[in-house]
Amino acid sequence: MKVYMEQDILQENDDQADENRLLFGNTLVVNIIGSPGCGKTTLLEKTIEALKDEYRLAVIEGDIYTTKDSERIEKFGIPSIQINTAGGCHLSAEITSKAASDLDLDDIDILFIENVGNLVCPAEFDLGEDSKVAVLSVVEGDDKPAKYPLLFSEAGAVLLTKTDLLPYTNFDKASAEKDIRALNGDAPIYEMNVLKGEGMDKWLDWLRVQHKAKTIK
Amino acid sequence: MKVYMEQDILQENDDQADENRLLFGNTLVVNIIGSPGCGKTTLLEKTIEALKDEYRLAVIEGDIYTTKDSERIEKFGIPSIQINTAGGCHLSAEITSKAASDLDLDDIDILFIENVGNLVCPAEFDLGEDSKVAVLSVVEGDDKPAKYPLLFSEAGAVLLTKTDLLPYTNFDKASAEKDIRALNGDAPIYEMNVLKGEGMDKWLDWLRVQHKAKTIK
Repeated sequence: MKVYMEQDILQENDDQADENRLLFGNTLVVNIIGSPGCGKTTLLEKTIEALKDEYRLAVIEGDIYTTKDSERIEKFGIPSIQINTAGGCHLSAEITSKAASDLDLDDIDILFIENVGNLVCPAEFDLGEDSKVAVLSVVEGDDKPAKYPLLFSEAGAVLLTKTDLLPYTNFDKASAEKDIRALNGDAPIYEMNVLKGEGMDKWLDWLRVQHKAKTIK
Repeated sequence: MKVYMEQDILQENDDQADENRLLFGNTLVVNIIGSPGCGKTTLLEKTIEALKDEYRLAVIEGDIYTTKDSERIEKFGIPSIQINTAGGCHLSAEITSKAASDLDLDDIDILFIENVGNLVCPAEFDLGEDSKVAVLSVVEGDDKPAKYPLLFSEAGAVLLTKTDLLPYTNFDKASAEKDIRALNGDAPIYEMNVLKGEGMDKWLDWLRVQHKAKTIK
């Protein structure tokens, strides 16, 4: 019975995601997914800092209860919408659609969605985004791609963060990369120390290419 | 409609959790919850190593697809049951009951349940355990208790892990502890570097006291 209901929810969600794709128009929409504390908000801060004079940016912040993350984004003076899921472990296409309707999408080049910190359900719920981006901090361990395969198989790009902590962990980069490749032949894997801004260039270029591809479509 | 269904599921789960409590009898059941990569399996390995001559132990390993964690536990020669949730982001009382029925509970003093790596849903689903234990690695950030309040409010103990990485993070211990205390007046907060076995003594003593309390009941 539970499985039946879940399929029901996922089908409804997929239908709404298709509507979202129309609503988003030429705006590039990037859905950022990773564990609690993998560095999603810091990634957004540094990315906004680097691109805010080049593109018109906006952010939808998914959180369970607090507004801590959107407060961190607001200081950049770009449009930022907070979604509180009130206990829910992922964003849905429906709530994303409501949040996006508060934005003037014609005036936004790139919309970032920071999903709820969770490697599981956010990967199942299509929000109508152009790309999911998987963020994995090396401190979480090299076994995570194999243990949470859906996200890594669906990701348009994989970011390995907190690489400055590599010397203090037993993270086996070759093993993680092998597991990611087995799930996903295409996604680039970028290593970065976001806090220090190291390794961000390829990620920023990847965003530029995605945006270009979206506007040519 | 979705909320209605969720309440339905939670009510069913709570009923089954009550049955599990009867099934568990005098066995102390500890439900270990934390993000992917916070160190739950390593904690279990070190805890089993320390207590296996003192108590009869068993483990139920929750995972989404793989058997990586239960392979790590099996080497200790204690009963270990793997649950694969096939995409599900938490263990339920029902699936826990099925796994537990494969164990000879009369011969087990302490049963550890390692939940799926996730700070959100596992906290909502009562498995009939005696205590939930919240595991937070300091690398995840001091804002996590406030952002994921349900787990920290329900925990019988909070373990701050990977404290050896404190010097390389911006984790504010006083702020995290203040937030945990605001949610939970009682739970002890133990700091530990599990990999090196540092700070484990208080945690092991806590388990001894819980087991004693359970057998006196």
